[in-house]
Amino acid sequence: MKGRPPLAPVMVSFGGNALIRQGQKGTFEEQFANADEACSVIAALSESGSPLIVTHGNGPVVGNIVIRNEAAKAVVAPMPLFIADADSIGGIGFMLQLSIHNHLNKIKSLRTVATLVTQVVVDPDDPAFSNPSKPIGPFYAEREARSIEKEQGWVMKEDSNRGFRRVVPSPRPKKVVEAVVIERLAADGVIVIAAGGGGVPVVEDSFGTLRGVDAVIDKDLSTALLGVEVKARLFIDLTSVEAVYLDYNSPDQRVIGEMSVLEAERCLLEGHFAEGSMRPKIEAAIEFLKGGGEEVVITSPALALEALAGRAGTRIYP
Amino acid sequence: MKGRPPLAPVMVSFGGNALIRQGQKGTFEEQFANADEACSVIAALSESGSPLIVTHGNGPVVGNIVIRNEAAKAVVAPMPLFIADADSIGGIGFMLQLSIHNHLNKIKSLRTVATLVTQVVVDPDDPAFSNPSKPIGPFYAEREARSIEKEQGWVMKEDSNRGFRRVVPSPRPKKVVEAVVIERLAADGVIVIAAGGGGVPVVEDSFGTLRGVDAVIDKDLSTALLGVEVKARLFIDLTSVEAVYLDYNSPDQRVIGEMSVLEAERCLLEGHFAEGSMRPKIEAAIEFLKGGGEEVVITSPALALEALAGRAGTRIYP
Repeated sequence: MKGRPPLAPVMVSFGGNALIRQGQKGTFEEQFANADEACSVIAALSESGSPLIVTHGNGPVVGNIVIRNEAAKAVVAPMPLFIADADSIGGIGFMLQLSIHNHLNKIKSLRTVATLVTQVVVDPDDPAFSNPSKPIGPFYAEREARSIEKEQGWVMKEDSNRGFRRVVPSPRPKKVVEAVVIERLAADGVIVIAAGGGGVPVVEDSFGTLRGVDAVIDKDLSTALLGVEVKARLFIDLTSVEAVYLDYNSPDQRVIGEMSVLEAERCLLEGHFAEGSMRPKIEAAIEFLKGGGEEVVITSPALALEALAGRAGTRIYP
Repeated sequence: MKGRPPLAPVMVSFGGNALIRQGQKGTFEEQFANADEACSVIAALSESGSPLIVTHGNGPVVGNIVIRNEAAKAVVAPMPLFIADADSIGGIGFMLQLSIHNHLNKIKSLRTVATLVTQVVVDPDDPAFSNPSKPIGPFYAEREARSIEKEQGWVMKEDSNRGFRRVVPSPRPKKVVEAVVIERLAADGVIVIAAGGGGVPVVEDSFGTLRGVDAVIDKDLSTALLGVEVKARLFIDLTSVEAVYLDYNSPDQRVIGEMSVLEAERCLLEGHFAEGSMRPKIEAAIEFLKGGGEEVVITSPALALEALAGRAGTRIYP
């Protein structure tokens, strides 16, 4: 403890699979049931009185929005990816907000919940823009992919032998435009859902004018950045695994109960964590802790409370 | 003036056509240009220092989301209408928020702007639920419409000889779930974009549990309700006409410079204002003024400042 006020915010992040799980069809009945399960954790956490900021992924949801957009492009004007991102923030935010409201209501809590549409500034010179790598949207046959490349200027890549998909840049988040508003609302006791899907990516020119860009931002990196900006104490990263593992999915797999930033950096160098999966979570944890955060817990929603009591999950400290 | 504090909030409402105008294709270049024009008014209004709450319609935008949803329903799980509503709140909110941010930045304002996803409670016993009347989404041939009616339980009606469309209920808004948060943020100087598209319609059971419902809420009625809840002073309703007219679109058409609530009620009774167009605006104005509001101004975005100075538009008073 560094003498930080006891009411420093707590960041809680849900994976995109908090709404649509692998193997599910993604019906809204499923999504609401999943959200309900995930959000019971938020209600339990709210009882400590700490300011709470909830972030979430949007992978499967924004993927569906992009597929719908492509399916109807002959009939209605197609939307840029950053609008699809903003749309997903509205839809997912609403589902989480309704679900958290209902859980708070059940425990007769006086706290309230709100979703803020969040813009996150990225650097137009980020190397990610010259090397788009995140696949998004529907699969295309090669011929169609090539003609889309010419017509729309998209970068198309073959994805795991299932066809061609658009790939988009995933630049580092630099600044959360609404950080001050989020901090103020959270300090007021409102549970704030923010930086959904990593936030809507925007670039800022030298006059401070914002403009949307087609990219996706890793939601763990955005959560870490927002956490540093609002001087959060704790970052609870809820995902589909119960803890962080060394040699994951090998016969030697073993759980990490806790580790320091230094140990986490060494494990990263040794290549323990998979790109696009555990790696960005560990990178985000390190950024949060180097930026002044005190503790990161990585676990599943079901084990969140156990993990906070030190009985499950992985704890990372400065 | 009733001794209300000078910093009582001001409500500003944009029509759905602030983003997509009649005759336009609805491309996002058009939408951003339209938003930019509309939002310059917000920046100008912000200089008074009054708390500002911005609401907006979503008609053309949510219509496009529903069309995309239908076009892809064989491929991705279709979304309920209230999720389409929530999605539109994210997308439109982002566009307005970015645009207002840029205008504030241009005038070196210290104020900030944020979009809150807003839930609005409707009464499940509202007569609108037994008489759905608002057409939404794509047109269908009669045969297809009949089979959709059977399969999905939707109500389909013929729409102006162009085919059959789904019609949905338009119940009265009863309560804005996030009103307290909106009021608090606005009092803090944040320009709050809220109750977009009239808000996401939800019903509340006797335990206070919320659930989304497929309906659309008139955004002027939601704005009036929210205005009463946050004790707003002024409601500026920006639309596609410059003022309210008597005998509109007839040779006898004449502008109303100002009128009292009593006069407005008489004109309503005389059938002066078109259903689904000026009528809900006048009804909303009356509700706002009867609920404690001091002034309603109805005009176009371009004339907003002139109208506030009493030189354009229509002013309605208690």
